[in-house]
Amino acid sequence: MSGFTHFDADGKAAMVDVTAKDVTERTATAKCSVVMQPATLEKIMAGGVAKGDVLAVARLAGIMAAKRTAELIPLCHPLALTSVTVDLVGVPAGLAGGRHAVDITATCKLTGRTGVEMEALTAVTVAALTVYDMCKAVDRGMQITDVRLVHKAGGKSGTFSAP
Amino acid sequence: MSGFTHFDADGKAAMVDVTAKDVTERTATAKCSVVMQPATLEKIMAGGVAKGDVLAVARLAGIMAAKRTAELIPLCHPLALTSVTVDLVGVPAGLAGGRHAVDITATCKLTGRTGVEMEALTAVTVAALTVYDMCKAVDRGMQITDVRLVHKAGGKSGTFSAP
Amino acid sequence: MSGFTHFDADGKAAMVDVTAKDVTERTATAKCSVVMQPATLEKIMAGGVAKGDVLAVARLAGIMAAKRTAELIPLCHPLALTSVTVDLVGVPAGLAGGRHAVDITATCKLTGRTGVEMEALTAVTVAALTVYDMCKAVDRGMQITDVRLVHKAGGKSGTFSAP
Amino acid sequence: MSGFTHFDADGKAAMVDVTAKDVTERTATAKCSVVMQPATLEKIMAGGVAKGDVLAVARLAGIMAAKRTAELIPLCHPLALTSVTVDLVGVPAGLAGGRHAVDITATCKLTGRTGVEMEALTAVTVAALTVYDMCKAVDRGMQITDVRLVHKAGGKSGTFSAP
Amino acid sequence: MSGFTHFDADGKAAMVDVTAKDVTERTATAKCSVVMQPATLEKIMAGGVAKGDVLAVARLAGIMAAKRTAELIPLCHPLALTSVTVDLVGVPAGLAGGRHAVDITATCKLTGRTGVEMEALTAVTVAALTVYDMCKAVDRGMQITDVRLVHKAGGKSGTFSAP
Amino acid sequence: MSGFTHFDADGKAAMVDVTAKDVTERTATAKCSVVMQPATLEKIMAGGVAKGDVLAVARLAGIMAAKRTAELIPLCHPLALTSVTVDLVGVPAGLAGGRHAVDITATCKLTGRTGVEMEALTAVTVAALTVYDMCKAVDRGMQITDVRLVHKAGGKSGTFSAP
Repeated sequence: MSGFTHFDADGKAAMVDVTAKDVTERTATAKCSVVMQPATLEKIMAGGVAKGDVLAVARLAGIMAAKRTAELIPLCHPLALTSVTVDLVGVPAGLAGGRHAVDITATCKLTGRTGVEMEALTAVTVAALTVYDMCKAVDRGMQITDVRLVHKAGGKSGTFSAP
Repeated sequence: MSGFTHFDADGKAAMVDVTAKDVTERTATAKCSVVMQPATLEKIMAGGVAKGDVLAVARLAGIMAAKRTAELIPLCHPLALTSVTVDLVGVPAGLAGGRHAVDITATCKLTGRTGVEMEALTAVTVAALTVYDMCKAVDRGMQITDVRLVHKAGGKSGTFSAP
Repeated sequence: MSGFTHFDADGKAAMVDVTAKDVTERTATAKCSVVMQPATLEKIMAGGVAKGDVLAVARLAGIMAAKRTAELIPLCHPLALTSVTVDLVGVPAGLAGGRHAVDITATCKLTGRTGVEMEALTAVTVAALTVYDMCKAVDRGMQITDVRLVHKAGGKSGTFSAP
Repeated sequence: MSGFTHFDADGKAAMVDVTAKDVTERTATAKCSVVMQPATLEKIMAGGVAKGDVLAVARLAGIMAAKRTAELIPLCHPLALTSVTVDLVGVPAGLAGGRHAVDITATCKLTGRTGVEMEALTAVTVAALTVYDMCKAVDRGMQITDVRLVHKAGGKSGTFSAP
Repeated sequence: MSGFTHFDADGKAAMVDVTAKDVTERTATAKCSVVMQPATLEKIMAGGVAKGDVLAVARLAGIMAAKRTAELIPLCHPLALTSVTVDLVGVPAGLAGGRHAVDITATCKLTGRTGVEMEALTAVTVAALTVYDMCKAVDRGMQITDVRLVHKAGGKSGTFSAP
Repeated sequence: MSGFTHFDADGKAAMVDVTAKDVTERTATAKCSVVMQPATLEKIMAGGVAKGDVLAVARLAGIMAAKRTAELIPLCHPLALTSVTVDLVGVPAGLAGGRHAVDITATCKLTGRTGVEMEALTAVTVAALTVYDMCKAVDRGMQITDVRLVHKAGGKSGTFSAP
């Protein structure tokens, strides 16, 4: 009635029963940004070449977090992901609407009975938190923003593309 | 030199050595928002009273995630948190600058050698992802935004309050 | 020879090899009770309506624990559960043989090569432990009792129903 | 007001803030029984000497589970346990009020700010579930019963001994 | 180009996309040795009969670790293993080229889209670390050595047997 | 009597009780090597500069694994590590006794009641397994060898340095 799928008829929280759903290939892509001071972005980009690589550490953290989504999100199904990619790019303000940011994109895939939106969203979010962690000593005011699903395909609810 | 604390002198990723730091009481508060359609917020608020309670599930998910921060964020220290609180409030657009949102706040505490900013940020983020998960069947366009540290106290770097 | 399936021919502990088993739909239901003082049950039931909801927290804990069964029980196979439900009801003594209790039921489902009895038993047990945790300040003498499998179906060993 | 410590003033679930509590030595002991058919107990006891050792596997499972209590019980604090012991003994009916059972006892210790009752209860429960798992092929009707705290000491609430 | 499969075209770490791979039965066997003082091996073998059983504890640790491989190895896929066996045998120097050792073998199986080499290697390694942990009070100089894949079968890359 | 500390007086596996031990600063360093074909080492070293960085991924895996030692090794205490460093260096045969290898060193620190040898050993081992995972498509014959404790300090048993 409410349209929420994670409550049973009595309004109690429940994992959605996907036993009878078709096994199909499913994919989902999520994005977010970490907005920061110009000097912070500069240091990240310099480091990525010559010294410690913030973006490489955050990429791994995002990939590993995707695999743990069902432990973090209470009503998510445990899934055997077949692919996870996480990309991070530094985007100076001139290219990104006046703000300096690291933009993060994750895509997850699965051949299974339920979608992988939460895995993609978890991947970008933990990658973003890792960027924050590694840079917080120089910029505590960073913000993670625009965490969103941009595309999903496969399964009964069909394809979704963010406007 | 770079000011980044998670790289050693050769630029290699490392956990910061906090062995010699003082044991002090440390606290951190983080916030974020989940922006959504008016109808989605309405359903969440109705459900919170009469039926399934999205905000209660997300609160628990946030508390539990704070305890797992060191598993998710590669260079975070394992910490014995002494307090975690997570609050979620539904804020209709009239009260919140023209957007319908669930606002999330988490505060973590510890008596130890390192701060708990990442724990508070992880708590609000996973709580927000849980709101997304529970409502995604009715509103795939929700966005998690403004994930930020608003306050920290304790430790050598002192008190930080977001402007 | 002993009939125990988790030991090899030399009597050494081993995970049962299910590689060659059929992929079928499997379901299992387990139950248990948390026996308590009348005043404790009264507080739980009052709280479930007006204030904090012990049963809702315990339900979530049970669902999440079912997903982690293979981490807890050494020789369980990792499984991709397709459904977990946990129900908790307060039962005053007049309805339950002279004792005040919270009765807990969990049902797990899977399309796979091995059964989900341990997942259902783990779910009710962790839900019961969570009830204990939340109420222990007012009633340390609570007992968890009658943890049992009540039904299973699917797989070579067929259907089991407790007498 | 309700006496429940895991809800804040608004009735929302919260981890109890133990930041200001004293660091003292704390200990807790829990017990439970797994009741079974005489033939099942006989096989376990035979196996414990000559072949696979159900009780040894269950003991390890209980010890390892105690360390993961804070991951399973939503509002438990993460703790650095300093001692966990788990004992399992087979008790034939003649010695135990007419039922054949494996009796399980766990004791946990800590020097810290909060008690370890939940750790001891989690240890006996997971040990009992492991006994069930290893014997279920020969006796699906086993029941785990009388899970209870028998003793705790240390901390502000003082010593508790079950009647 | 490099032949490394865990980097994308830009040289960034990525989980290999196995979505399109065939579901086939896959198996892998790994081995390693823990080399130790003669007196240490003697104590282990004595204990395995009369008292505490180092090899039994290590076997369980290896089995449980195999199930957690994807949490430990950043780019491994989460897998639903259908079989794990771990064997440990004490080998006195006369039988093993002049060194006293515990030899460890693990075999993992799966019906799935990717191989289980890492699961078998993780199993022997964690079993070996557990032997070290349990005996380190009497022999800190033990070494784990010759950790290797000895056989794999199934999947596109076909069968591998170590020379 | 046996000198093994992880068994009680009856020979049953037990976590050592460290409740009464002094809180002191403890450190441990472990090492191991991954032996490989010359061409494999060449690719790793080339990749470390220009493209994907095997050693950086393995370093992170080792750091993260150190934090999970108590989940993997059954009788290890959960510890709040204050420092973990992992270093990997490629060593061509001319510099290393005729074999091409990646040499791995990890150092862990803690102010606590028990030592961190297992954490250091777990870190080098998981780092080595990660090297294997990332290179296995080009060299399945790699071996992890000489996993050993090279130094420990702090605690009652005093300082140990490998010969």
